[in-house]
Amino acid sequence: MLDATKTAAARKLLTASTRSDVPPFMVMDVMAAAERIEAAGGHVIHMEVGQPAASAPRTALAAAHAALEQGRIDYTSALGIPSLRARIARHYRETYRCEVDPDRIVVTTGSSGAFILSFLALFEPGDRVAVTVPGYPPYRHILNALGCEPVLIETHSETRHALTGEALLAAHRKAPLKGVLVGSPANPTGTMMTREALTELIAVAESEGIRFISDEIYHGLDYAFPAVTAAELSPNAVVINSFSKYFCMTGWRVGWMVLPEPLVRPVERLQQNLAISVPTLSQIAAEAAFDGRDEMEAVKRGYEENRRILIEGLPRAGLVDFLPADGAFYLYADVSKFTADSFDFTKRMLAEAHVAATPGTDFDPARGKHFVRFSYARSADDMREAVRRITAWLGQISR
Amino acid sequence: MLDATKTAAARKLLTASTRSDVPPFMVMDVMAAAERIEAAGGHVIHMEVGQPAASAPRTALAAAHAALEQGRIDYTSALGIPSLRARIARHYRETYRCEVDPDRIVVTTGSSGAFILSFLALFEPGDRVAVTVPGYPPYRHILNALGCEPVLIETHSETRHALTGEALLAAHRKAPLKGVLVGSPANPTGTMMTREALTELIAVAESEGIRFISDEIYHGLDYAFPAVTAAELSPNAVVINSFSKYFCMTGWRVGWMVLPEPLVRPVERLQQNLAISVPTLSQIAAEAAFDGRDEMEAVKRGYEENRRILIEGLPRAGLVDFLPADGAFYLYADVSKFTADSFDFTKRMLAEAHVAATPGTDFDPARGKHFVRFSYARSADDMREAVRRITAWLGQISR
Repeated sequence: MLDATKTAAARKLLTASTRSDVPPFMVMDVMAAAERIEAAGGHVIHMEVGQPAASAPRTALAAAHAALEQGRIDYTSALGIPSLRARIARHYRETYRCEVDPDRIVVTTGSSGAFILSFLALFEPGDRVAVTVPGYPPYRHILNALGCEPVLIETHSETRHALTGEALLAAHRKAPLKGVLVGSPANPTGTMMTREALTELIAVAESEGIRFISDEIYHGLDYAFPAVTAAELSPNAVVINSFSKYFCMTGWRVGWMVLPEPLVRPVERLQQNLAISVPTLSQIAAEAAFDGRDEMEAVKRGYEENRRILIEGLPRAGLVDFLPADGAFYLYADVSKFTADSFDFTKRMLAEAHVAATPGTDFDPARGKHFVRFSYARSADDMREAVRRITAWLGQISR
Repeated sequence: MLDATKTAAARKLLTASTRSDVPPFMVMDVMAAAERIEAAGGHVIHMEVGQPAASAPRTALAAAHAALEQGRIDYTSALGIPSLRARIARHYRETYRCEVDPDRIVVTTGSSGAFILSFLALFEPGDRVAVTVPGYPPYRHILNALGCEPVLIETHSETRHALTGEALLAAHRKAPLKGVLVGSPANPTGTMMTREALTELIAVAESEGIRFISDEIYHGLDYAFPAVTAAELSPNAVVINSFSKYFCMTGWRVGWMVLPEPLVRPVERLQQNLAISVPTLSQIAAEAAFDGRDEMEAVKRGYEENRRILIEGLPRAGLVDFLPADGAFYLYADVSKFTADSFDFTKRMLAEAHVAATPGTDFDPARGKHFVRFSYARSADDMREAVRRITAWLGQISR
């Protein structure tokens, strides 16, 4: 066997590619530290994870049980089980009064699978694609891994942290953009784009030939006003959604896209090659999940209560400055009064108050050091206890 | 809304990227035609799909049922559930007497997920990676989609269709290779590399600094002699495997990699961003599948019987020339005596004899027109009936 430490050829075998040099999530360090506290008997309030505390709807669980009884769990067609694609199309009719041809719906392995497929189908290597900061870190990391250039556009509180057509055009004038990706309700800010803001942004993008991708994974979790789907506004928009958040099905890894008609066949061929098909049991459960909406609406009412507790409680604790918590289950708070290093702030809050939250630096390399993301997907009791602990802790450290 | 047929900017919204222009599988046309025959009441013998007829082991199904009862199906850590990684390491000890550190094992979304992660972690855009033809088409299509250049090396029957160190060096001298990917047992040929052939190839590759990737998805389904894992031969090899074939878990989409130690962290970061985690229920079922090996060994004995039926029956039908059917559940037959167009041959055999098989052109663009792949993963009765039908049909067309 070759001694890999000796020759130049062998050294090549020990290094990873440049494009795999993706930054880690800082929140992972927070989670590991929380585990250590819990292993030592401590009780941590988890506000760091973007994961619902509830289970998938009972209808979904029952469908999975039944499928396990019935026989083989085979590959499905690459675009997804036809009845699931039809059920998703019906969801657009029922929820948004928007007609979408089931042929334009592609089932994906979570929204993660949808990002990979859509980026590959839409963009060439080297293409510039705009994403907002603060924003979900994998947007820019996946774009980088696939050879595209993420162009970070900072959003501001004056526009509820929505990307404006003006800001998009400014970036496009520096060097042409090929695409733009926005999420609403957004992670980590919890802000939402109004119908007018989304309509204007799509019109500006399309008039310049910039592809529009709408991440709608937090749709259904809208408190301030009803979320608008880009599918209603343009047949050329790529819409990405998932069963992970509203339907509480994170570990099932199942999502979907609504594609412009000319992209369906290219994406089908990509999925045949890159994934073969999406996990079958998850597809079956996802179809049945739509029949469990009553249960999920009760979960949503829980988030609304959690949101109320935080919106009332955090200012009393001293965190007076946060973005409008329109949707999703995140609240993005300005902590610059207390620290210039949100990573250190979250580490200390975890160690001293046993409350875990995510430093903003994961979402916004520059300004994130002044922000912390609180997730409110757990129980109301947890939220009340979190407010109590944060109040006591901030009282102590600012004394 | 923008009229997308009118402006130049809008036309950009209607075209897919060059890199998504991946050829379709011809077998899909065969499958669609088979469905039409069945819809009209015909009875098709399916020898076109690489999918076992049996279910996952009962132990796996029971574990999935239990997990559905127990609670939430959450994300797991990106590298996979620790107990599954440990169980896979034990599999190497028990099956190959080979010690593999569980920390080097990464659970993936099928072997498909493993190809994406390993190609991204090992190779830069533009890197040349050798693959064999005939071979599994997604190898070259995924490499292309990720910006690498697949270098096709033809294999020959004199070496049991194994890639030789000599052929690898010849390609490397034309322009440097950064990697080589081989499968054994192989799809579509069913041939296997001997221990000597695999050892020599890895040594040659590593002495030139060429990364070695071993696709071992058909391990366990070895009839001619025991399959050898590359994990035993080099700590620098990337080994890819899956629960789809031996454990009959295609639709579950769960596989794994054994990585060189320095690649674990880069792959972990890639998986965090590109997939978050692998379907949880599938991971739980996969761990329990190892306890169902007795059941799977019975399935394997069925394949051995099928293989015997074809090896004896096809020559009597007139198909005397095929590659040594060492492993997997494929037999790759030379049909040049009957046709110079294997796609037309499979279309006619399906229409006239109701036997579905895959044209070799899917696997070998040049020489595949003389070959057909028969999958023998179904029942022995199906195999006997297939031989009967093919015998009658070939008797007719060659008269």
